[in-house]
Parts: sequence; C-alpha cells; structure tokens
Amino acid sequence: MSPSIAAHPDRLLPADPRTREIARGLLSRVQDLPIISPHGHVDAAVIERNTPFPDPAELLVAPDHYVTRLIHASGVPMEQLQGGNPQGARGVWRRFVEAWPLFEGTASGYWLRTQFEQVFKLGAELSELSADASYDAISARLVEPDFRPRQLFKDFNIEVLATTDDPLDSLDSHAALAADPSFNGRVLPTFRPDAYINIANPSWASNVERLIETAADGATGYGGYIAALENRRRYFVDHGAVSADHGVRTPATLKLDDADAEALFEKARAGQATAADRDAFEAHMMYQMARMSVEDGLVMTIHPGSYRNHHGPTFEAFGADTGHDIPFAVNYTEAIRPLLQDFGTAKDFHLVLFTLDETVFSRELAPLAGFYPSVYIGAPWWFLDAPDAMLRFRSAVTETAGFSRSSGFIDDTRAFCSIPARHDTSRRIEAAFLARLVAEHRVSEDRAHELIVDVVDSSPRRVFKL
Amino acid sequence: MSPSIAAHPDRLLPADPRTREIARGLLSRVQDLPIISPHGHVDAAVIERNTPFPDPAELLVAPDHYVTRLIHASGVPMEQLQGGNPQGARGVWRRFVEAWPLFEGTASGYWLRTQFEQVFKLGAELSELSADASYDAISARLVEPDFRPRQLFKDFNIEVLATTDDPLDSLDSHAALAADPSFNGRVLPTFRPDAYINIANPSWASNVERLIETAADGATGYGGYIAALENRRRYFVDHGAVSADHGVRTPATLKLDDADAEALFEKARAGQATAADRDAFEAHMMYQMARMSVEDGLVMTIHPGSYRNHHGPTFEAFGADTGHDIPFAVNYTEAIRPLLQDFGTAKDFHLVLFTLDETVFSRELAPLAGFYPSVYIGAPWWFLDAPDAMLRFRSAVTETAGFSRSSGFIDDTRAFCSIPARHDTSRRIEAAFLARLVAEHRVSEDRAHELIVDVVDSSPRRVFKL
Amino acid sequence: MSPSIAAHPDRLLPADPRTREIARGLLSRVQDLPIISPHGHVDAAVIERNTPFPDPAELLVAPDHYVTRLIHASGVPMEQLQGGNPQGARGVWRRFVEAWPLFEGTASGYWLRTQFEQVFKLGAELSELSADASYDAISARLVEPDFRPRQLFKDFNIEVLATTDDPLDSLDSHAALAADPSFNGRVLPTFRPDAYINIANPSWASNVERLIETAADGATGYGGYIAALENRRRYFVDHGAVSADHGVRTPATLKLDDADAEALFEKARAGQATAADRDAFEAHMMYQMARMSVEDGLVMTIHPGSYRNHHGPTFEAFGADTGHDIPFAVNYTEAIRPLLQDFGTAKDFHLVLFTLDETVFSRELAPLAGFYPSVYIGAPWWFLDAPDAMLRFRSAVTETAGFSRSSGFIDDTRAFCSIPARHDTSRRIEAAFLARLVAEHRVSEDRAHELIVDVVDSSPRRVFKL
Repeated sequence: MSPSIAAHPDRLLPADPRTREIARGLLSRVQDLPIISPHGHVDAAVIERNTPFPDPAELLVAPDHYVTRLIHASGVPMEQLQGGNPQGARGVWRRFVEAWPLFEGTASGYWLRTQFEQVFKLGAELSELSADASYDAISARLVEPDFRPRQLFKDFNIEVLATTDDPLDSLDSHAALAADPSFNGRVLPTFRPDAYINIANPSWASNVERLIETAADGATGYGGYIAALENRRRYFVDHGAVSADHGVRTPATLKLDDADAEALFEKARAGQATAADRDAFEAHMMYQMARMSVEDGLVMTIHPGSYRNHHGPTFEAFGADTGHDIPFAVNYTEAIRPLLQDFGTAKDFHLVLFTLDETVFSRELAPLAGFYPSVYIGAPWWFLDAPDAMLRFRSAVTETAGFSRSSGFIDDTRAFCSIPARHDTSRRIEAAFLARLVAEHRVSEDRAHELIVDVVDSSPRRVFKL
Repeated sequence: MSPSIAAHPDRLLPADPRTREIARGLLSRVQDLPIISPHGHVDAAVIERNTPFPDPAELLVAPDHYVTRLIHASGVPMEQLQGGNPQGARGVWRRFVEAWPLFEGTASGYWLRTQFEQVFKLGAELSELSADASYDAISARLVEPDFRPRQLFKDFNIEVLATTDDPLDSLDSHAALAADPSFNGRVLPTFRPDAYINIANPSWASNVERLIETAADGATGYGGYIAALENRRRYFVDHGAVSADHGVRTPATLKLDDADAEALFEKARAGQATAADRDAFEAHMMYQMARMSVEDGLVMTIHPGSYRNHHGPTFEAFGADTGHDIPFAVNYTEAIRPLLQDFGTAKDFHLVLFTLDETVFSRELAPLAGFYPSVYIGAPWWFLDAPDAMLRFRSAVTETAGFSRSSGFIDDTRAFCSIPARHDTSRRIEAAFLARLVAEHRVSEDRAHELIVDVVDSSPRRVFKL
Repeated sequence: MSPSIAAHPDRLLPADPRTREIARGLLSRVQDLPIISPHGHVDAAVIERNTPFPDPAELLVAPDHYVTRLIHASGVPMEQLQGGNPQGARGVWRRFVEAWPLFEGTASGYWLRTQFEQVFKLGAELSELSADASYDAISARLVEPDFRPRQLFKDFNIEVLATTDDPLDSLDSHAALAADPSFNGRVLPTFRPDAYINIANPSWASNVERLIETAADGATGYGGYIAALENRRRYFVDHGAVSADHGVRTPATLKLDDADAEALFEKARAGQATAADRDAFEAHMMYQMARMSVEDGLVMTIHPGSYRNHHGPTFEAFGADTGHDIPFAVNYTEAIRPLLQDFGTAKDFHLVLFTLDETVFSRELAPLAGFYPSVYIGAPWWFLDAPDAMLRFRSAVTETAGFSRSSGFIDDTRAFCSIPARHDTSRRIEAAFLARLVAEHRVSEDRAHELIVDVVDSSPRRVFKL
C-alpha cells in the first residue's frame, strides 16, 4: 500500500526523477531549521496563558475563513458554520467533513491533511461515515496534557512568532512571555494601525479619540493624532516589535502638507469625508508611516488590493473575515512613488510590498526591489500562498531580482496548528524551484544549497531585522 | 516510422514518463464518456434536417474565424476567403493549405489535424502540392451517406448539445428533434438576448419593437420589454433551455430603479443614448437577467471583455465574426458586486463567469467562486481554449477553489466536426494536470480517478442543470 | 568535478531526459547560425574606429543598468558605481564582485558568467578574495590585439547589428563601415525620434528647433516639423536603416486633423502644454509615424509602458538610464486601434509591438498579430528577456498566433560583449519550448527542426526586412 500523500517524503517535489533527487538534497538542508514567522495572527494571550485548544470545530473550522468559504460555496449556509448549528460544534464538524472532498487540490486541504496526520495523529482519511470518530479522536488529542500552545510552540520548533496587534493593546502578554524564563521562544507584537487610519471604518472617529486621549501626551487634533501614533509605535518597539503592518485599499501614497492633512482629518472627524478623501488620507498616512519607520526602525509591510466584505448580507449577519474579501487589480509603480521619492534610499528603511494581484510580481515588484535598497518583494500571500502560486512567484521575480530581494515566507495565519504545514510547504517549494534551476544548469548545486538556507532562514531574519 | 502526432495515444500528455503513465490511466477513465456540450453555436436546423455538409472550404475554412484570421494575418486578403475567390471553394481551400504550416503549435491546427485524420480519414499531412487531392478526398467523404449530422452526432458520442439562439427564434427545430423518436440526443436551445440589450447595436430599436409586439402580451414601453423577455425565457425553458448567455462589453452590473431604467430605455429608443448610457443599461439588464434566472432557473453565463469588430474596414466589408474581436482587460470584483449582493446566495442560482483576460482567474474568479454558491468559474474560452492555456487555468484556480467550482469544458464552436477533437483536448489536459498533482503527491491516484470523472462528466451536468 | 554551469552543453534545456535529447537536436540546428540583431544600443563609432574597450568596470559594470541596479539595491550608493568611487575603476569592480552572489538566478548573472568564461576566458568563478585578480585578468584580455570590436564582431558571428540613433545623427560611422571593403558585417542605423516627439522632454523645444532648421528644407512650424521628420527618415533609409523605434509612455494612438495637431504643437513650443496634451501629441505622432512607415517602408517598433526615472533624486544626480525605469500596466487593444484602423492592412507595413506587461501577450498581442498582417509580437524585452519569461511568452502567444507572428529575438543591448550570450540564451529557450511540444506530440520533430530555424533566423530577416 502506498503511503499517505501527507506523509510522503517527496510531496510537492518535482516529478522528474533527477530534479526530485536534487530537490530532496536541498530540502534536507532546511527541513529541520527553526520556524521564523514574522507576520501572523495568533493571539499572544493564548500562548502566555497556555490556554487549552477548544473543540475541533472551533479550532479548525469556524474561525478559518479559508475553510468556511469553500464549505459555504458548496451550499452550506454560513450560520451552520458560525455557532448557529443546532448540533453545535459536532454539527459544524459534520458539515466540514461532508465538504472535505471539495478541498482536494487546494492549499487549505493540503495544510489540513498534514495537520490531521502529523499534529492530530489521525490514522485514516476523513470520511462522512466516520465524521464523529474523527471529531472524537481530535477532541481526545486536544485534552492531552502535552497538547497545549507552549508545548506545541516547542514541538513545532518555532523560534520567532510575530502577532498582529491594535496600537492601543497593552502588550501585557508579550511582556509576560518575554519575562518568563521558562519560555524560550520569541513572541513579538506587530503594530497594525488600520482602524485608526481608514476613515471609512465606522469606529474610526471613536478609535482616534481614544488614541489621542490615551497616547498623545496632552496634545490634540491632527498633531496629537500623529504624536500618539509615534508614541505607540515607540511603545511597540520597546516591547520587541520589528514591524508595522498596513492593510490598505490600494498601494497609493501621497505627501500632503500639514495644513491639508489636518483639514482632511477634521473633515473626517466631522463625518463629512468623501470616498476620495478616504483614499487621500490613507495615502497620506502611508507616507507618514514610512517617515516614522525611517525614524523608529520598524519594518513597514503593505497589504493592499482586497475588496473587504464583498457580500453585504454576510457581513451584516456574521461580521468581517468571513470569507468574502475578494482581490482586485493593483498598480504599484505610480502609487508607491511619492513614498519612494523621499524614503526609497533611506538608511535601514525596509518596506515589504505584498500583492494578491500576481501580475505585479514581474512587472512592478521585482523591478522596484531590484533597484531600491528599501524595497522587498512580499512572499505570495493569502490566495497565493500555495504550491503552484509560489512557483509562479519565484519564476516571476527571480530573473530580475535574484533571491536576495524577497521577504521570505510569512504564514499570515491565525490557525496555530497549521504553522508547521505551511512552512513545510514553502520549504518544499523553494527546494522544487531551486532544483529545477540546478537541473537546467542555471545555478550550481553547491550554490543552491547555500541559497535555500538563505531564502528560508536568513531572508526573514535580515528583512524583518530579527 | 513514428505515428502521426494526431494519432499518437499520448498526445498532449506530460513528457515525464511516470507522470505520463499516471495521465494515461486517468485519461482512460474519461476517454469514452459521452460528450456534454452545454454552450456552442451549431445550428439546430442542420441536425434536424440532417443537411449534408457543404464543400471543404465552406465547412472547414470560411466560417471559422479562428482559421481565417491567421490566414489573413499571413497576407491573404479577406475576400479570398469569403466568397470573393475567383477559383471558388477550391481556391479558398488552396489558400488554406498554403497557410497550413502557420497553424503549427496553435489550438486550431491541432483540432484541424485531428479532424483530418479521425473524421475525414486523410492519410497524409496537408501539403501545397496535394491541395487539390485533399480537397477531393474530403469532398468525397462529405457525400458519403453516413457523413451526415445525425450519424456524426451519434458517432461523436454526443449526449447533449446546446445551441445559441435569438430570443424570438421559434425553436421549431429543437421541438422537432425532441419529438423525433429516431433521434436520441438532446439538442437544447440557449437564450441569447444581446441584440435586445446592447443599445449600441444599430438594429436594437427595431429588435426591441419586434420583441414587444411579439411577446409582451399587449404591454408596451419598458414594462412590456421586461415582460417580453420574461415570456421568451419561459418559452425557452419550455423548449428545454438550461441557460441564458450574455456577450457583454464588461462585467459591470447595476441595479437601477424602474423609473431610471425606463428613462434610459426611452432615451435609447429615441436614439439619444450616450456610450455611458449604453454601459449603464447593459449593466442594469445584467442585474435584471440575474433576477429572471433566479426566478426561472436558467443558468446565467457571462462572456465579457472582447472588443468586437476591431478593424472597421473589415467589418464594413465582411460583417461581424470575421476574426478581429480582440480581448481587453476586465475586472470582475467591483463590477459584479451589485448583482452578487442581491443574488449571490440565491437558491439554485448558477452564474458562470467567463474571461479572456487570464489575470482574473487567480485574482478574482477563484476567490469569488470559492465563496459564492452561485458562482462558477467559466472554462478557458476562445483564445484560451488551448492546451497550455488550460493548464495555466487549472493551476490558477485549483489551489483556491478546488475542482468543484468550475463550469466544465465548453466547446463554444460552430464547427460541428471539430467537437470531438476539442473535447478530447480538454480531457487530455485534465488528465495531464491531475497526473502532475498525483506525481507530486498532492492528490492520491485513487482520488484523481474520481476527480477526472467529476470534472469531465459531472461538472457540466451539475453546473448546467442537465 | 562537474563542468562549470556556463560551459555545460545542456544549460537552459529541460530536465526531462527525453525532452532534453530532443532539445539538443533542435539547438544543434541553430547554434552556429549567424547573429541577427535588429535592435540594440551599441555605438557604431566604436566599431568603425575599432576602439579598444575600456577597463573591466567601465566595460561591464558602470554603464549596464541591469547590473548597477541590483548592486544598488544591495545598499551600495550609486556614486560608488558611477565614477565617484575613490578607488576608481578597480573600486567599482570590487563593489561588483562583492555583489556578484546576488546575481544568482538572474538573467544578467547568466550573461555575465557566460562572458567571463567564453569571452574573457576566466578560469574560475568570481570571488571577493580574488576580485583584483579577475580585474587584472580581464584587463589583460582587453589589451590583447585581437580583443577589438571588429575582430569580436567577426568572432561573435554577427551578420547584422542595428544601432539606435538620433534623427539628426550624421550616420557617418554607418556610412564608413558600409563603404569599408575590409568589414563584412552590416551595421544599420535605427531612427529613434523620441526626443523630438515627447513634449515633456525638457529639451524638446530646442530639439525641434534644431530639427526644423536642419532638415525642413526651409519650411517652418508644424508643417516644417513633419517635413523634417520625413526627410530625416529618408536619410536613414538611404543609410541602410530598416526600422524606426519609439519609446513611448503608453501604446495610445490618435488621428488629429492638421489644425488640431498644429495647435498642440504650438502650445507645446510655448511651454504651455499639459500632461494630457503630452499624451495626445505623442499618440498623434505615433499615427504619423505609422503613416510615414507605410510610405517609406521603415519597420515601426513600439516600446511602451516604462515609468522612466522613477527615483527623482537618483535621476537628478546621475541622469537617465541608471536603473530605475519601472514598468506599469498597458492596454493595447483600444489604444492601438486608431492606427490599425487606417494602416493595419497596409501593404508591406510592419508594426512590432513590445511590452513589459506580460498580461498583454495572450490577451492582446497574440490576438492582434493573429489577424492584422502588419502586426508582429515583439520578443520578450528588458526585464522579460530571461529564460523563464521567454518560455512564458512562447506559451502565451503560440496557441493563438503560431510561430510566424513574432519578431524574433532582439538583444536591445549596449553591452557588446554580452551579445553572444544573449542570443545563445534565446536559442536554447526556443529549443526548450519546441522540444516540449515535440515530447507532448503537439509538433512533429521534423517540423520542429524547420520551425527553430524559422524562428531564430528567418523571422528577424522577414519581420525587419533584412
């Protein structure tokens, strides 16, 4: 009997036998390296408190919009997956198991299958007939004493894990972990000020009021707003943060003078801003965030190009992050120019540009990162965080920018148990890509062995200043 | 001597020996399945009347704009291919045979060569020296008594063939075929109302007048227009139609209230509509068509993004569909949102989104179809209906949306004799793609055997409600 | 010990053994064919005067913006590479050798390594430890008596080399070479009028004044401007030019009547033109350039879509062509239509459309070139002139347009010593692509042997009228 695909030592490696052999050698160089995760959405408190994981549905299905979206597409109403299931967690799990065959060939399916086998030690494929059995088996694993966040952090060989945090977060969990001599990992906060920058956010005005009250050292208005952001960034730096992350609508940047920026700010506070004002203010604030990054050293990461909450009725009933953020085309070349004019060659400034629009990889990001010392190409993200998409990414950027100008893998996940599978996928794909270059005599095998270590291990440390 | 490439059992399968072996096994599962053709342009009357095929030029060259366009590009004036050839059909054929080497590597060349060998039983490659001999050989085949549409329909193993029809078509041929006990296939009409929706069409006003007179049950104006469309859709449903097809300029959709829609409608009837009015009215009508589909169950298919009749002088001399419809970039995410807001989760609504702009596959269509139960990703179409393009399509969409969210192959052809070659191409490419996933241990071989049957056979039945 | 990758006979060929074997056979058909270079930036005077090459840094690093850009991205200030290096040429070379590992996997790295081994006969890989030794070795080669432009022209087996020239250039070097019986190559000028067409160029007005004074036969104003351009094109034709090249912002074309064009022209001369005027005038002039090409037979080539001099401070300090021209998205379908309406089927008109935006290859360029006899798809250019990008190009265009509708390779280089490596790369990739089609039974091996000769040798001769 052939081994499970999730356990096959050659999974994701190229089919050609000689290329596969080269890939195996490359993979062996990085397979046991620690995990560096410089961008993600795990909750630091869960690690600090070593909170036991909830039931299988709550852990693996309900909060993972990669997973719920495809079940939803198959015709299962969202309430069946979001607490409105009359059979509770077990009912949610049954809907998931019924939909499981639909995940064949998807990135999520691959990560899940790997978790089932390697983290939860399920012996058999999921099937409708044994939905309850798999629920019970995972549940049993979840209550094992060694199945707790801190032990898994160690078992997963995680060295650095960055979280994503509100600028007003106390960062107490991060501080506690840093102070705890029994915990050896690094759990770092990330400054994520979207809710204080996007004036179309319904709670923007109250967020900003709170921000100024809390952190502006008595200053008010636009000046207080800027000062408070600077202060909170400093607070994050003091708590170990290495980066500030920005989920923006587009990559636009804009340098406004203070008077114009202040006028926009006050117009927004008065609830009178237009859609164009929203875009202008966000663009201006990206310029300001770059200025602050130049000053305080936080790596700046930009994630544009997602139409958030595309389906109004689902958003109204179930809130954000429920699987209907849909990408659209972006253009970086003109949009990012105002920022790069002033900061593109600033000392020690690091700017990581992500995209959900693959067309910009070869057309814009590789050319930009191949000139500006500050610019790094963000690894394939979200819908593009998958084997074929990663290979397309490397093919699109390497011939212009080489291997030194990309960010290294980010898992971007809130699904803690999927972290090893995601990093393993990335390492296998890097091995697959490099093995092809070796087989085609474009890179020597010796150099490829150095490059894969650089890409997997040194790149994220260098780019994220770890 | 090596076998002809058109006859080679491994044609289009991956070169790697182990992957090819897997692909052969997968292909064998679907090679003999009946052909399901849910969207195409064959004339139902030709099948009903069992009309003999015309001469080789009229059958294979003149009406096929995939073919004439490349001959034209080589410098042959269009009149040489369109009835203005002084040597008649034989002269058209000679131009084609002279240009035949230019088709090397093209999808059309592949389909044609396959037809020559498998349908017309030519023993040798086309060559200029034997142009007349090939003309004669095909002509002889065309007058054989078994070389008639109904026999070929059976020989080709076609189970379902959808035609594309004017909303005011009587559908008599479809009715006659359905009533004919000697004919076992299903020939279904498709509702295609473009000429009644695109107000820039010079005959729009007279088309609409005729539509209202014929089908509005006495109602007039915009109300009569809408009622007539609803009535004719119902008539199509009653004659077996399963889908309504829309060749639109862009994917824009728009919900206008009745008064605004009526005002636009009357402005257009008065010949005073602007280009913006044209776009707004089409966008509004797509919203209306979706509403009607929700009500009457017709699958809605959208084909946007082609600049029709790009070369004015050729259009003026030779009319539409003469090879110079040229694709342009489209964006679905924002454009389709008004429609999806209201109908994206409507019960049993099926919306198939096609594109000639490959960039939207991974960026927009897979994410949309991976959330909305109504949305299916249209198979690669027209210029993208070719081996490499199909592989790029599968690679672009599968990691996000799996195999269950795409439409299944459509041949979209008016070239009846090319139908088997086109479906065979698609099946081979599905086998090639899945075989790679198996070889890379991303899908098990057993599951791949199920998936290829699902993709080739079950998908079109499910998506098109057959 | 394995051979150097730059010397490996199978470099860039596909890994699959059977496909590689086919590729070897195909490559052998074209490996020794002469180099046809119909578009590039070598200085004719250097060949005419047989000028010795300068030092290694000045020859291989400083003027090559492909090379300096990636060194700059690694953090080396531009002045270190541009004459401001306190250690002079040797210092520039050291910076380059330090950065050399960053070129792994890039197209530039591949060309450079090939030159080092095959042209400069370096026996070992570059390394920091031996930076001075490699500088000395190359320097020694540069002063060898046979290491001069004319001998290399012969050694490189160059048959035709087109330069790029200012419309007012005397073309004396071209004339001298043509008249020199001791020189057997063809060195052809190319008419490049950008500086006389782009009204945003700061020296446009003075350029135009000089043009009219010199070449308008006494005519003045817009009429004199057009006449002077026509006259200078004729002068270029008389000196052997076969093409006119246009580096434009976008592919837009526009037919203005004379009065409107004249008004724009005078507005620009008065320094009052807006950005919209700039675009309109350039679009109009592209229409005029096509009209002239129809009349005088010069092949028209268009290179749009690069945001020139993206980083203002670098441009101000170091001038143009210093590595920060960044591509952006373009759309040809609507933009090029006014030109094609009138000239798309004009007798003997050749229009080669280049792009830095890969998305237009399958979506627009292949469909356009597959209909219009005048349109040819420009080979992958600049950032896309690399192995994987070239394979993507062939895959994107061939299924629609076959092999006859693309331009053939252009090296577009000012780096004379890189010409053989660049053409060798292209030939290997053509062999790789065709070998895959053969292995997949899509093209017969015999036909592939004809096609590769056609693509490498006949295409550039046919398209560029050589």
